[in-house]
Amino acid sequence: MKWIEGGVCAPKGFLASAVYSEIKKNPLSKDLGLIFSEVPAVAAGVFTTNKIKAACVTISKEHLRNHKTQAIVVNSGNANCCMGRQGFKDARQTAELTAHALGIKPEAVLVASTGVIGKMLPMGKIINHIPKLAGDLKNGASSDVAAAIMTTDKVKKESAVSFKIGKNIVKIGAIAKGSGMIYPNMATMLAFVTTDADIDKNALDKALRCCVNRTFNCISVDGDTSTNDMVLIMANAAAANEKITLNKKSDFELFSSALMEVLTLLAKKIAKDGEGATKLIEVNLKGAKNDKDAKIAASTVCNSNLVKTAMYGQDANWGRIAAALGRSGAAVEEGKLNISLGNVKIFSNGSPANADEKILKDILSRQEIKINIGLGLGLSAITMWTCDLSEEYIRINAKYRT
Amino acid sequence: MKWIEGGVCAPKGFLASAVYSEIKKNPLSKDLGLIFSEVPAVAAGVFTTNKIKAACVTISKEHLRNHKTQAIVVNSGNANCCMGRQGFKDARQTAELTAHALGIKPEAVLVASTGVIGKMLPMGKIINHIPKLAGDLKNGASSDVAAAIMTTDKVKKESAVSFKIGKNIVKIGAIAKGSGMIYPNMATMLAFVTTDADIDKNALDKALRCCVNRTFNCISVDGDTSTNDMVLIMANAAAANEKITLNKKSDFELFSSALMEVLTLLAKKIAKDGEGATKLIEVNLKGAKNDKDAKIAASTVCNSNLVKTAMYGQDANWGRIAAALGRSGAAVEEGKLNISLGNVKIFSNGSPANADEKILKDILSRQEIKINIGLGLGLSAITMWTCDLSEEYIRINAKYRT
Repeated sequence: MKWIEGGVCAPKGFLASAVYSEIKKNPLSKDLGLIFSEVPAVAAGVFTTNKIKAACVTISKEHLRNHKTQAIVVNSGNANCCMGRQGFKDARQTAELTAHALGIKPEAVLVASTGVIGKMLPMGKIINHIPKLAGDLKNGASSDVAAAIMTTDKVKKESAVSFKIGKNIVKIGAIAKGSGMIYPNMATMLAFVTTDADIDKNALDKALRCCVNRTFNCISVDGDTSTNDMVLIMANAAAANEKITLNKKSDFELFSSALMEVLTLLAKKIAKDGEGATKLIEVNLKGAKNDKDAKIAASTVCNSNLVKTAMYGQDANWGRIAAALGRSGAAVEEGKLNISLGNVKIFSNGSPANADEKILKDILSRQEIKINIGLGLGLSAITMWTCDLSEEYIRINAKYRT
Repeated sequence: MKWIEGGVCAPKGFLASAVYSEIKKNPLSKDLGLIFSEVPAVAAGVFTTNKIKAACVTISKEHLRNHKTQAIVVNSGNANCCMGRQGFKDARQTAELTAHALGIKPEAVLVASTGVIGKMLPMGKIINHIPKLAGDLKNGASSDVAAAIMTTDKVKKESAVSFKIGKNIVKIGAIAKGSGMIYPNMATMLAFVTTDADIDKNALDKALRCCVNRTFNCISVDGDTSTNDMVLIMANAAAANEKITLNKKSDFELFSSALMEVLTLLAKKIAKDGEGATKLIEVNLKGAKNDKDAKIAASTVCNSNLVKTAMYGQDANWGRIAAALGRSGAAVEEGKLNISLGNVKIFSNGSPANADEKILKDILSRQEIKINIGLGLGLSAITMWTCDLSEEYIRINAKYRT
């Protein structure tokens, strides 16, 4: 497996385009994007678990059922959420207009939106710009779409790999957005994945679910989960490999592990780009009694404002890590608990390890910090990512709509 | 029932004192306090649910079992938590020294600590200052102890009421601290309550639990729960009322409702004094399917960093309230959901209510904001309190130990 350039346009047979359609205020930023497969593709999706769902979530789910997919149309600057019937009408119309411009069926189009909740989608603007969006499709425009889906993101997020299935070169490419409201169970994030692998729907669906669970569901910025999250994947078979199915275990695992790499890189990029973040924090937790305990213990540490502000302040205040573990709901025994910052033990079987504060300060001054936790109670382990919490987070979110 | 002055010294037979014992860095701030009942009192306590518990929690629980209580000794500036056996030794010694100075049994002393986790309690300093602490006991020193338990608190928190049971005047007084790490299930907070009521242990215990559940367990500052929380109450029977028991329903309810008032006032003071807070936010939620749903829905809104920063920014971004409700785990149906800010409806049965942004701006500029939520699914309701989230919270918590 090797890392390659090109994002969602890296795999064969995928085109992309993006335009400024006047939804966002800044005319220099794109806000409407399109990803297109030259042939109908097998597709799968993972969606928000929030009970308040944007119209695009419901409609994309519908379109994934029993249909092949050929396009994903996405806008930023407006979530089209909490808009009642009008919201559904607008999301449906966006799919229809896109389908019409591309000469395909509306059901072959998936729709995504991100931005502020509770404002009507400016359909006039979208109607005006879809023909140009379809007309501009080209190879090599992945980063334009990656830019068009950004809201408070500071960096574009793309990744792609190539690997072999048998003698055929297969590629997976992806783009993502997300920097606030990121939380286990997906959070305000969008990710669009393309692959030229030939893979059947069941296998694609299973691979996506498994990889999302260990990547995007393992990052946290602020504990808030959004109404619009989705991860979509299209597989167009252009690589002409022998079809991957759940029965062909080794090919399926090859594909899944490549997808895991692509999504892990994006997940870490999202955590690192958390609103106002200055540091990426990796929480490696082991020794949990079971997988559920591992996840709630690690995610409680990741979501603790007090842990996150201490990391921002470069303060090795490990008591806050212990306190977060203790309130998580997971089984925790003080006398068996071990905590390290990087390689330096700070809490050892129930007592402070009296680590050198100067060495800790040095570790905490870095841009990537590892918090290693041993619960000493079992065999379950997990890795999760978060970021620190700074004044900048407040500034970004206090006036988001203005 | 009427509000009175005097805090924990308002009820008959209670004395207090506080000194600076050099635990805190600032010599102008007191850090060691004592509350004393002239006669042995019936006592009860509610303690943190965190699995990592400070030594004082374990020891105070022990001392409450089958013993009358006569004193509460409390230090700030050091939580004496995560210190292994040394922590227990130090907490026990603090009780013993206090008991010796007062001429009572160690089991009659409850111990509390608050401050940084993972630093050894400076016992030399505590040993040196306990005699003066005991010697200084006097009536009217409630606010000295209220000051001595402050950490990042900006204001002292006291309340007291008097009411009649039969012909006898009964008083309840209390002090509290807490401004960060406040979360349902108690959080880093201490509250000490005194009453001259004659009440049996079962009734006192039940009244305390019930009132804590509707007051201190209904406030949230940052979702973090501490290792040291406790609410303690001593009842010394000095009012000479007919003894309150669970069988005397009307007297029990009279006492409970007075206690509820005292604790509600303190709970609101704690939420309002949240670290960096500029506003008190009251979330009134009704129409939940059941009590559990009501609590998780309201507390998810209270703990949402995005809702709290929007309130700080005076931005009526109600989409974040809807999104928080949706991810809370409670049953929520978009089409039945109603949200108001103060008296102004902003979301009505699944659609934006197109409220006047100027009127909303005016509501949001106030120091107390009410978010009223109707889920429209059942009869359960709850009121919870939180505060907004500002840059100041980050500044306070980024360098807490330095």
